[in-house]
Amino acid sequence: VTAVPGVGVPADLETPALVVDIGRVQANIERLQGTLTARGIGLRPHVKTHKSVRIGQLQLDAGARGLTVGTLGEAEVFAAAGVRDQFLAYPLWAEGSKAGRLRDVHDAVELSVGIDSAAGAERLAAAVRGARRPLRVLVEIDPGQHRSGVAPEDAVEVARAARTAGLAVDGVFSHGGHGYRPGGPEPAGADEVRLLAEAADALRAAGFSPSVVSAGSTPTMITAAVSPVTEIRAGTYALGDRQQWTIGAIPAEGCAAVVAGTVVSVHADRYVVDAGAKSLTKDRADWLPGFGHLPDRPDAVIASLSDYHGVVRDPSGAASPRLGEVLPIVPNHICPVVDLYDDFVAVLPDGTAERWPVDARGRSR
Amino acid sequence: VTAVPGVGVPADLETPALVVDIGRVQANIERLQGTLTARGIGLRPHVKTHKSVRIGQLQLDAGARGLTVGTLGEAEVFAAAGVRDQFLAYPLWAEGSKAGRLRDVHDAVELSVGIDSAAGAERLAAAVRGARRPLRVLVEIDPGQHRSGVAPEDAVEVARAARTAGLAVDGVFSHGGHGYRPGGPEPAGADEVRLLAEAADALRAAGFSPSVVSAGSTPTMITAAVSPVTEIRAGTYALGDRQQWTIGAIPAEGCAAVVAGTVVSVHADRYVVDAGAKSLTKDRADWLPGFGHLPDRPDAVIASLSDYHGVVRDPSGAASPRLGEVLPIVPNHICPVVDLYDDFVAVLPDGTAERWPVDARGRSR
Repeated sequence: VTAVPGVGVPADLETPALVVDIGRVQANIERLQGTLTARGIGLRPHVKTHKSVRIGQLQLDAGARGLTVGTLGEAEVFAAAGVRDQFLAYPLWAEGSKAGRLRDVHDAVELSVGIDSAAGAERLAAAVRGARRPLRVLVEIDPGQHRSGVAPEDAVEVARAARTAGLAVDGVFSHGGHGYRPGGPEPAGADEVRLLAEAADALRAAGFSPSVVSAGSTPTMITAAVSPVTEIRAGTYALGDRQQWTIGAIPAEGCAAVVAGTVVSVHADRYVVDAGAKSLTKDRADWLPGFGHLPDRPDAVIASLSDYHGVVRDPSGAASPRLGEVLPIVPNHICPVVDLYDDFVAVLPDGTAERWPVDARGRSR
Repeated sequence: VTAVPGVGVPADLETPALVVDIGRVQANIERLQGTLTARGIGLRPHVKTHKSVRIGQLQLDAGARGLTVGTLGEAEVFAAAGVRDQFLAYPLWAEGSKAGRLRDVHDAVELSVGIDSAAGAERLAAAVRGARRPLRVLVEIDPGQHRSGVAPEDAVEVARAARTAGLAVDGVFSHGGHGYRPGGPEPAGADEVRLLAEAADALRAAGFSPSVVSAGSTPTMITAAVSPVTEIRAGTYALGDRQQWTIGAIPAEGCAAVVAGTVVSVHADRYVVDAGAKSLTKDRADWLPGFGHLPDRPDAVIASLSDYHGVVRDPSGAASPRLGEVLPIVPNHICPVVDLYDDFVAVLPDGTAERWPVDARGRSR
């Protein structure tokens, strides 16, 4: 079993706590930005992973062309923080008070929004009617994940409805990265790129000018960064997690965030940390054993989680930690974990630590 | 497939949102309180489920003897709200600033705390040294769940260490309810009661006076409510969830909380709601298909969750809902779900709706 290099946890920390190594975050940001810049492809990081204005600013400072958000609430938080260029990569249903909120963000910043239906596009158009400029939209293409998005052959119909309703159709987007497994083939962006290209060609043939071809996800952030894709919307890469490390999408030292838990109970066959389901989440791909990775004890398995208990078993027979010991844990999937915390401990490259707010925590609507 | 009676979702609700039917909550509270009062056994509801001062007050008004909390943060919130009698059912490791926080709560209210090690007890004693009265503790007994807690034969050693350190040993507690499955035997409190009784007897034989014998969990709230158990610490029963309903621990109408999601994307084989992993959690027992129950579409399966997407498939072939339709979803496990929301929509028995805060949201430490 290999291990993630441990993230240093400050002494005297109340646990459970989220700890982020900002030096590693900066390295993650620069690594991907450098690769994409060298290829002439834009980066529009997804903020749903960190929900932090300060980390978003690090991404913009490093050269990102704008940010991706997943909800109107995230858009509002980053707009209020002065982020001028945002893509809401979601088929927003803009009804009732959400229509007014969308209009306000559209008036305040350069916002584009995802669509995958004529009816959804018409709602967006109604929400921004009378605005100074049309709302820009991208048609979502299903890259084979079968979540939201349409087949390439259906993109034109959605785009036409949008144009008829008064929206500006800027291009297409998708969220790939599905179906990966450790030891499987390299996370493949090839299908995603092929389907996006088909959709963009169809739009062009129908008289549209799809200037944006946007591909998603950390697993495909390298493999999908090829023509005609114009931008990549990776999110998880900034903080990293056990899942992305296990499939090889990021290096071990790309894991920049840990949950620190204190050992509160020790028994012959197990020990218990105070990081449970409300601190780590029960997110677990079926190919991952346990609910997190302990860098200091790489053979240990977090076998079960209750709300405030994480039960750890160690098949290697290693001696248990002592009561009161603080263990860093790399979460399986960092995105829903960050959303549990009002703030995190940012360990700066000089070794000092500060509290950084999770500005968009809980902004799921 | 049977269905939970639908919880009414107010019109014009921004989603995803947590909606709680207060009439059902009151019925849940009165049902269990009535059963336990008739048996002469106390009820000390666990607030980790709802984290709501107002629901906690409903439980106290109905006759609960006090409240159970799982973290110091929850204790602080409920102490600030005036709840005078609390049991922190957790082997708290009271080091550093947590020691000072414990002392403050101990000074403010009648607090007892769980212990399962001599070292943990000594930390608690050090934290409250010099207080006006000793801190009361209960020794945690492992009821076979193998989480925290000691075997009955080890209870005396922990109790002696606590007494030597200056703590007042009030009794024993456990958290049962493990190992249940639908269609399996009725959730059995028998082992939990037997092991608690053994531990209480051992303490008595060693010169202690274990006046509190406290059993836990919604699955065993009825079966463990027998002598010598003196109080039950159920939590989930107040809001209910799919898991407790499926195993028969609560009636279908005991499901009082739903997550409301809007249909944002419809395809031939699936549809997508805007309630994803950050609104429903990925908590799923291996015997439950999908990530929630749709009362209006009981055959539908929430097949996968992304952060903001819930992908629904319906093997019954029922027609898909229309775009923009709002669907109530009964979560698999309500406790970590509530912790995602700053507030919830409380639908009152007269049909009006208010926002009630989740006062202890995020207070995991």
